[in-house]
Amino acid sequence: MKIICNQKLLAHKISIVQKAINGKTNFDLLKGILIVAKGDQIVLTGYDLEIGIETYAQAEIAEEGSIVIDARLFGDIIRKLPDSFVEIETDDDNNVYINCLNSKFKIKGDSPEEYPVLPNVSKDNLYSVPQDILKNMIKQTVFAISQDQTKPVLMGELLEIVNGEVSLVAIDGYRLAVKSCSVENLNANAKVIIPGKTLNDVNSLLSTEEQVQIGFDDKNAIFMINETKIITRLLDGEFIEYKKLLPREHNTRIKLNTRSLLNSIERASLLSQSERNNLIKLSIRDNTLAITSNTEKGNVYEEVDLELEGDYLDIAFNSRYLLEGLKNIESEEIFIEFTTNVNPCIIKPVDGIKYIYLLLPVRIASNI
Amino acid sequence: MKIICNQKLLAHKISIVQKAINGKTNFDLLKGILIVAKGDQIVLTGYDLEIGIETYAQAEIAEEGSIVIDARLFGDIIRKLPDSFVEIETDDDNNVYINCLNSKFKIKGDSPEEYPVLPNVSKDNLYSVPQDILKNMIKQTVFAISQDQTKPVLMGELLEIVNGEVSLVAIDGYRLAVKSCSVENLNANAKVIIPGKTLNDVNSLLSTEEQVQIGFDDKNAIFMINETKIITRLLDGEFIEYKKLLPREHNTRIKLNTRSLLNSIERASLLSQSERNNLIKLSIRDNTLAITSNTEKGNVYEEVDLELEGDYLDIAFNSRYLLEGLKNIESEEIFIEFTTNVNPCIIKPVDGIKYIYLLLPVRIASNI
Repeated sequence: MKIICNQKLLAHKISIVQKAINGKTNFDLLKGILIVAKGDQIVLTGYDLEIGIETYAQAEIAEEGSIVIDARLFGDIIRKLPDSFVEIETDDDNNVYINCLNSKFKIKGDSPEEYPVLPNVSKDNLYSVPQDILKNMIKQTVFAISQDQTKPVLMGELLEIVNGEVSLVAIDGYRLAVKSCSVENLNANAKVIIPGKTLNDVNSLLSTEEQVQIGFDDKNAIFMINETKIITRLLDGEFIEYKKLLPREHNTRIKLNTRSLLNSIERASLLSQSERNNLIKLSIRDNTLAITSNTEKGNVYEEVDLELEGDYLDIAFNSRYLLEGLKNIESEEIFIEFTTNVNPCIIKPVDGIKYIYLLLPVRIASNI
Repeated sequence: MKIICNQKLLAHKISIVQKAINGKTNFDLLKGILIVAKGDQIVLTGYDLEIGIETYAQAEIAEEGSIVIDARLFGDIIRKLPDSFVEIETDDDNNVYINCLNSKFKIKGDSPEEYPVLPNVSKDNLYSVPQDILKNMIKQTVFAISQDQTKPVLMGELLEIVNGEVSLVAIDGYRLAVKSCSVENLNANAKVIIPGKTLNDVNSLLSTEEQVQIGFDDKNAIFMINETKIITRLLDGEFIEYKKLLPREHNTRIKLNTRSLLNSIERASLLSQSERNNLIKLSIRDNTLAITSNTEKGNVYEEVDLELEGDYLDIAFNSRYLLEGLKNIESEEIFIEFTTNVNPCIIKPVDGIKYIYLLLPVRIASNI
């Protein structure tokens, strides 16, 4: 193989496929990037057997061929080279010669023969979603994915397409985040579970208002973002029927300024940060939400204006979960709906944006 | 004590004195900030028994008094409060009440009675040095301080004032950095050893072109920067007579572009980073410096243009030490002077700026 490629372009492409590489794998070949030079381009692939990322770069191909090069070393070298053209050549012993102006590297590559083949996902049925919409959907839900390895299904998100509406759903034992968006010309239905790691990788590649193409088969999903293809194994199993968890009614509904509430809870949680539960207590009365926290370090009392519909309520939460939900709401005002102080509450934007954050309260003794 | 102070101002002042607080101390009182309210200002102090930082803020003093408040919690609370006025009040049990708009905190403070008194350094003989000059002097030398706790003197820098010239000198077993500057109206002589931690703290407070005032007695130094006073214990002992270490002659002198050399060495060191010595080899010939490194991962050859005076030379270095010196030279071109490949070399700017970086080579077998 012998190619000549622009240094900045190559460095950028390496950084993309590096996202799929797990440096801790025992399978040494997977620490490498597969480079295939053919026609007038090189195709770069990173793969950890769960997520594969493939992208290409225009290059001058003096000799076609392929090689696997340690991703970290290759990335470090290419990034440090001057902004010029890089020549990469291999010999029959898989040595890799990298030349750029006054720099000459010789490093050990690996034969690409044993490099695993990425699953082939049919591109016949691809859904188109604007990149910025998908990015926002991921951001507003992915933090609520479970970290509990004993419930692998919950370490991913449900991606649902029904009647032209896309939803992403994340749930752990304590909260549930659902974000939905209507997308034009989306005529099919689908229901798959995407690993959280994939969504984070996809998120980091989404940038423009162009479309991302999404497709599925039984085992895998594909995301096509600009010149990059991400193929991921889907998670097996049944996702929780989350719609059944959403309360149908409420006895108390309050309307608040998102930023004021967020700031007050951030302060109220300063005293509880070292405690087990990050416990804060909310007292809902006419016009006022009082937030309190009593810990060994002291106590704090915060007041936030509200508009109340329904009953007074005293309820307690883990402030961390409450903060994570609030931080991901961009709308100026929110509703919070409660039934009782032992049932989940629902936070949603006032402005009609389709986002629901459901949160379980912490049970406490009645004398709060 | 009862005071009212602007939130932004107070948060800024807390962040200054926090630099002197060691959160790991066993002496709980020293985890706190001493606040003394008197006249029309509050004085804040942080002290770890080696470095003390004292600063003040204008405040409305409704009741004079003093208190010690846990620095981290106090800083976290004040920083999170809205941009308004903060009222701080204490009671006879050293409870601290912090009120700001709709936020009310009550936390435990400590009696200031046991808080240690900072050493009193006479302000009769203060030297004036422009802040930006001192900042640059610290930056260009402090990285070469020894981390070896068995040689405490070398964990500080020699600050020398001779004939209107200030020098800072740092040395560990492998390299020596000396930065000197002429300062107007500096008529006295001095020679003290300042702890590295102090210099880093001082550095972080230097920002403008105004003067910093520096003074010493037998045991302590004082730095007065704007409204802040840093008092530090000096290090005992004799500093190495560094001038004797500087070679008087050279057999080889090369002139190079600083940035080109730095970039080439950064690349050449990519292969050796995981090895014990970060070993790179330099071959000096007419017009060209060849930099090579051979490791298990592969090998690299880099070329940099040079102007040579004197003999050809092959010499090896730990690339990390070479890089740290080069990164702190802002001049476009440097000289490097060598005697033999087992004696220290000297790096210095071509443009006459008074900076010397002396570096020991690594001895290697003759067949480099």
